[in-house]
Amino acid sequence: MPRTSRAVKLAALPDGLPGPEHFSVVDVPVPVPADGEVLVRNRYFQVFPSLRTLIGGGVKGTPFPPLRPGDTLFGAAVGEVVAAPGVAGLRPGDLVRHWLGWREHAVMPAGQCAPLDGTLPDPAAHLGQAGVAYTALARDARVRPGDTVFVSGGGGGVGSLAGQIARLLGADRVVGSTGSPDKAARLVSELGYDAAVVRGGRPIAEQLAEAAPGGIDVLVDNVGGEQLQAAITAARPGARFVLVGTLAGQLAPDRSGTTAPVEIDTFQLIAKRIEMRGFGGLDDAGPRPEWTERVGAWLRSGDLTFPHVRVAGIEHAPRALQELIGGRHLGAVIVEL
Amino acid sequence: MPRTSRAVKLAALPDGLPGPEHFSVVDVPVPVPADGEVLVRNRYFQVFPSLRTLIGGGVKGTPFPPLRPGDTLFGAAVGEVVAAPGVAGLRPGDLVRHWLGWREHAVMPAGQCAPLDGTLPDPAAHLGQAGVAYTALARDARVRPGDTVFVSGGGGGVGSLAGQIARLLGADRVVGSTGSPDKAARLVSELGYDAAVVRGGRPIAEQLAEAAPGGIDVLVDNVGGEQLQAAITAARPGARFVLVGTLAGQLAPDRSGTTAPVEIDTFQLIAKRIEMRGFGGLDDAGPRPEWTERVGAWLRSGDLTFPHVRVAGIEHAPRALQELIGGRHLGAVIVEL
Repeated sequence: MPRTSRAVKLAALPDGLPGPEHFSVVDVPVPVPADGEVLVRNRYFQVFPSLRTLIGGGVKGTPFPPLRPGDTLFGAAVGEVVAAPGVAGLRPGDLVRHWLGWREHAVMPAGQCAPLDGTLPDPAAHLGQAGVAYTALARDARVRPGDTVFVSGGGGGVGSLAGQIARLLGADRVVGSTGSPDKAARLVSELGYDAAVVRGGRPIAEQLAEAAPGGIDVLVDNVGGEQLQAAITAARPGARFVLVGTLAGQLAPDRSGTTAPVEIDTFQLIAKRIEMRGFGGLDDAGPRPEWTERVGAWLRSGDLTFPHVRVAGIEHAPRALQELIGGRHLGAVIVEL
Repeated sequence: MPRTSRAVKLAALPDGLPGPEHFSVVDVPVPVPADGEVLVRNRYFQVFPSLRTLIGGGVKGTPFPPLRPGDTLFGAAVGEVVAAPGVAGLRPGDLVRHWLGWREHAVMPAGQCAPLDGTLPDPAAHLGQAGVAYTALARDARVRPGDTVFVSGGGGGVGSLAGQIARLLGADRVVGSTGSPDKAARLVSELGYDAAVVRGGRPIAEQLAEAAPGGIDVLVDNVGGEQLQAAITAARPGARFVLVGTLAGQLAPDRSGTTAPVEIDTFQLIAKRIEMRGFGGLDDAGPRPEWTERVGAWLRSGDLTFPHVRVAGIEHAPRALQELIGGRHLGAVIVEL
């Protein structure tokens, strides 16, 4: 086993969008697990846009502290157990998922990682965006046959799966939003959306009224801002909204706060009895969580594809984040070590 | 039976706050019920602040059309059946509740009125604000023992009951907001609030942080605007918000749109898994709805008081609305005919 390992740290706070120059890939000693801890060699980790919010200072009053220069980045990861002294049920070689990505080796208390159960055909699918998409739709938004579903950020890591899963759960019409006409075309041709709206052109509310003329029953919101406003305008009575991400701020080149403040008219929420909730987290306590069962079956049958881009080598992770924020990719962005 | 009856119509659109000069009390023929319709002589109706929103032009995209000059106002009412030709189960003298207040006589299809079942000791309590308060807390916000509850507009028709009902459902600490230090004192001394915050003084978020230092689990929002923002800041993870009213706009002297737009940071909703929903309406289909059973028992035992002001005579209804919007009263404002 090597004595040193690599990790990505925040080197400097960006003024606008973060680029590779704001990160450093540093050599660190391989951590030594204490009794009850697990040492993992990471195989995959996920690059996710909320990092920009945390780099930009976080959001006061939330449980997530901001990232400061010198901090190691983090995110969903899948790795192989190297050692787990005094931990029952984990052996070297077992695959686990956890939250300490952006480093080649990670050490954590046994309770902070979970063994992969083999329900998903691709270990990288355990990074969780499929679980977020499934759980947001099935549990939080309670998609029902016949629903019209709008997925903002429809080509992102969560959105590229949510559009497909909405249909598999019985939605009648699925509309996505994305950042360019090219990607809008791919949403329809590759990801099964019935229609796509494009930000930066005509008002989203106007485009959405055409794409979903009968209104929407469900929103999976990865964006916030104007897209959330448009969804409120398009909502049918009793619509269920689940808020997952705030790309509106995270993708904006001109702001460093990077959240997605939005002006909402609460009279509309009342008059239409709209339900809007922050995504409630994965239900993955049980031995075989519902989402891995369902998503695993769909992936094996080919009903669901897992759109993602793999970037090889931890040294390319900062560029992967830059490309993700720049909207270069469709689907999840995964760094493979 | 008289041939003529009186009704209140909108006479002119106000520029700012509506006053008696914007309404006219007119003589109209007593309507004649067709087969399957019910003619009701109203005994009470409720004056509610959302009328200002409808007078101010309504809100686009909602099911409520604006009120225009010449339109008769409306609102929850309780009255006595005068005639119900061809309607099974309703006899002259029966009390019913319905939505055609602001007139001495009303006629409607039988399906649009519901008989009072005697579960509430005061027929005026059937006007529904107790039902809104109970249902918002028990069903929509799922108040649990130990919760800290914030009721914005804590002295209003719904709020004055919600504060008391939150406690009866097991809330540990109940904080209300209101428009003046005088009313704040009455919230604590008469309505059982543990503490009250006052709008128009120091920032609500600052006052709320002191009144609920551990944060809030539940919001019953009758106000919107700054108070909703403050509640988001004060929310504990998993907080449940139910949106009932938009007094922030309706009480404002300087606006005629009269809704309550508010800037929300959706990242906070996500990070804290906040659930926010427009009030879902009363469950009052069954023969004895849950809210009338529970509220009736509390009213009879004296655990709950029904704070309200009665104004006698339909000709005073416009002034009652003006006083309601001016924040003159604590509790519901009911016109008695």
